[in-house]
Amino acid sequence: MAAFAALSRSSADASLLASLRELLGGRLSTAAAIREQHGKDESYHAPHSPDAVAFAQTTAEVSAIIKLCAKHKTPVIAFGAGTSLEGHVAALAGGICIDMSQMNGILRVNAEDLDATVQAGVTRKQLNEHLRDTGLFFPIDPGADASLGGMAATRASGTNAVRYGTMRENVLAMTVVLADGRVIRTARRARKSAAGYDLTRLFIGSEGTLGIITELTVRLYGIPEAISAAVCPFPNIEDAVDTVILTIQSGVPVARIELLDEIQMAAINKYSKLDHKEAPTLFFEFHGTPAGVAEQAEMVKAIASEHGGDDFRWATTPEERSKLWQARHDAYYAALALRPGSKGLATDVCVPISRLAECISKTKRDLAQSPIPYALVGHVGDGNFHLVFMLDPNRPEELAEAGRLNERMINRALAMDGTCTGEHGVGYGKMDFLIAEHGEAISVMRTIKRALDPNGILNPGKIVRI
Amino acid sequence: MAAFAALSRSSADASLLASLRELLGGRLSTAAAIREQHGKDESYHAPHSPDAVAFAQTTAEVSAIIKLCAKHKTPVIAFGAGTSLEGHVAALAGGICIDMSQMNGILRVNAEDLDATVQAGVTRKQLNEHLRDTGLFFPIDPGADASLGGMAATRASGTNAVRYGTMRENVLAMTVVLADGRVIRTARRARKSAAGYDLTRLFIGSEGTLGIITELTVRLYGIPEAISAAVCPFPNIEDAVDTVILTIQSGVPVARIELLDEIQMAAINKYSKLDHKEAPTLFFEFHGTPAGVAEQAEMVKAIASEHGGDDFRWATTPEERSKLWQARHDAYYAALALRPGSKGLATDVCVPISRLAECISKTKRDLAQSPIPYALVGHVGDGNFHLVFMLDPNRPEELAEAGRLNERMINRALAMDGTCTGEHGVGYGKMDFLIAEHGEAISVMRTIKRALDPNGILNPGKIVRI
Repeated sequence: MAAFAALSRSSADASLLASLRELLGGRLSTAAAIREQHGKDESYHAPHSPDAVAFAQTTAEVSAIIKLCAKHKTPVIAFGAGTSLEGHVAALAGGICIDMSQMNGILRVNAEDLDATVQAGVTRKQLNEHLRDTGLFFPIDPGADASLGGMAATRASGTNAVRYGTMRENVLAMTVVLADGRVIRTARRARKSAAGYDLTRLFIGSEGTLGIITELTVRLYGIPEAISAAVCPFPNIEDAVDTVILTIQSGVPVARIELLDEIQMAAINKYSKLDHKEAPTLFFEFHGTPAGVAEQAEMVKAIASEHGGDDFRWATTPEERSKLWQARHDAYYAALALRPGSKGLATDVCVPISRLAECISKTKRDLAQSPIPYALVGHVGDGNFHLVFMLDPNRPEELAEAGRLNERMINRALAMDGTCTGEHGVGYGKMDFLIAEHGEAISVMRTIKRALDPNGILNPGKIVRI
Repeated sequence: MAAFAALSRSSADASLLASLRELLGGRLSTAAAIREQHGKDESYHAPHSPDAVAFAQTTAEVSAIIKLCAKHKTPVIAFGAGTSLEGHVAALAGGICIDMSQMNGILRVNAEDLDATVQAGVTRKQLNEHLRDTGLFFPIDPGADASLGGMAATRASGTNAVRYGTMRENVLAMTVVLADGRVIRTARRARKSAAGYDLTRLFIGSEGTLGIITELTVRLYGIPEAISAAVCPFPNIEDAVDTVILTIQSGVPVARIELLDEIQMAAINKYSKLDHKEAPTLFFEFHGTPAGVAEQAEMVKAIASEHGGDDFRWATTPEERSKLWQARHDAYYAALALRPGSKGLATDVCVPISRLAECISKTKRDLAQSPIPYALVGHVGDGNFHLVFMLDPNRPEELAEAGRLNERMINRALAMDGTCTGEHGVGYGKMDFLIAEHGEAISVMRTIKRALDPNGILNPGKIVRI
């Protein structure tokens, strides 16, 4: 797994660096520590440092940087918060990293239209903090405090996609710098449009390989009048998953419905100092009017009860809820803490929900044959679940074994008409799986990549080989 | 307006027709009446007949037809139900029309996953009829009984997009035949995926210019436990629009919220033999649990009441509801019937909802200066509204004047960050407006078109000039 074409690595030449320095002054860095930090994400994938890091502040600067790189046929890689999980930011062929963190301006909040326009380096927490007094919020929540540009570039989602959708459904328009430095806006601010090819969706999930997103207009939502959250343990994982499936099929507009297996529950109890039952558990959140939330909760309780889930523990105050979801968001670190010094490999399949129970139970049977420790957590309302393998970094055979387990799980998901990645993206970790998933369609992706980036300078070695 | 590049027209040659006849036998027609019928849609745009019509039955046949056309560099145009409104099916450069109406198989309903896979010629009413006993339905409703392939190709939406989204949000995956006859599947059946470029969304709205959709997997929804609908007149159009804006901003999950002006109300009263007040009127529909629907209705009634809308007339039985929405769907024909013998020109701007009242009132002021009769109807929850101009086909100066009014309205919408087409698409009627809307981004569309259809055989003369 995780094979990638060996790209020839060529250092950015001195004249390019001189031009960039002229443009950016002190905002161009070739310091080793800065370069190292920008060549790695939060995954187990080998880091690859860029030759220099450019801290851009405006779309015009990004355009100028790309024009210079295009002239020198030098790779350009955008860097948001560095929280990706498939090696997206690794400078496999060297080149210039554009750090977007200084492009953190919130340009406009249109409260009446329920949208906001931001620079790509704005993080989701920063946006929600900014919105605090407006009664509005931006829902997409991948756990990490990622940048919105990075979230769009990887088509991120997370815990409440089951209700609010993914970045695909929540970006109205973007400003994108193309491979030759030209700047386009992908769409207008209208809620819907039938005006030509859907460039917004083309760049969402393109991982910086077709253009670099510098601004985006995202959808906002009114903070629900009532929110309540609950945790409920189940006798076994099948009963928990069946509860999810029935909830979705019944059309209950649940805002979050998350599964954690018994190992993951033990991990968060220990890490977040909680005392939940260490059994397969669902975390729920309901949004709506007070009456609507109560009604949703009743419907879900009835379904859960039929599957042995009777012990609902409710979090109604904002503090209780926030503690509950913080524990959920820390699941990854909690799992790694079960094996001190370990490094995580996170998997990410997503299947049609009718196949979810079968996919999880077959996967669990396969994992039972292996000594590698793992925990399971999932956005199961979408059919998406993750394993975290806790790997000893000094034992490469463990990484190889986790890779084999992941490969078998992905093949299982593909055989069920599922996808190799529900939300983490392809990066350089899943290019071979992408071919297995898409077949002939991969050639269309390659054609588009070649047409929009003929010199292959945009995040080379990611998504498709050209 | 509506200028299009004069394409050189070349008849399909005899050897191509012979090969197609060998492939299809009696399912290839060169009869004048059949060709004429396939060169026109429901719009005022000049029809252009294809040289022959091929009635395909399978994806393999569509592939074989396109391979032959590619060999002969002959245009290929897909034809669904012929209900488009911007000349999408006109064979501007001649060529072969592929009629999809015999590709009307419902291949699979996955009730557990809330999706169905159908051939592209299946119409929305056919699918809903098929689903009747499952408790599920497919929501997208553009009025006309369009084919699902055509609806995907034009990114259609309609009355309940405000709740359920457009075709963009409701297609999970498609089978598409490319310009060289290769067949791809754009995605898996998983609810979400971050696996590479979003080919599904690229082909949705591409109007047959990048590939021909032969099968699609669409999302289904449970038929709501409770549905209620209402009609409410308002003192003036501003109050009606303000009611819509507040309803959307309050987050009421209204399923439909439609505006008809006083002229349109007079038209449907006459056409559908109803007795509604002839004032600006909103049509509402609420979906949910009985308690949820009652709550939504109360919230909307309170908002409407603040804007002079007190006279709610409720339709609760399925028969009453169906009569109400049939009248709404017949609005276009009802408007034309106000001026017997007239032909319609339907406009389609969509603006951010904060600008909707201003856009409508400025447009109405402009229209007041003109003698051309019109009626207004709109999916106002999305910021989308239509005018129907009723034109005397024997007075070409009326078409010219309507064109000027439409152009001014589109420029007004674009200045408000809106779009020239909310749901009808571009066809050959809006190519110039598309350039005005997208600026430099149009070059990206052109690059994609050239890369995926280098010989320009797929529905030439639509969306972008190459």
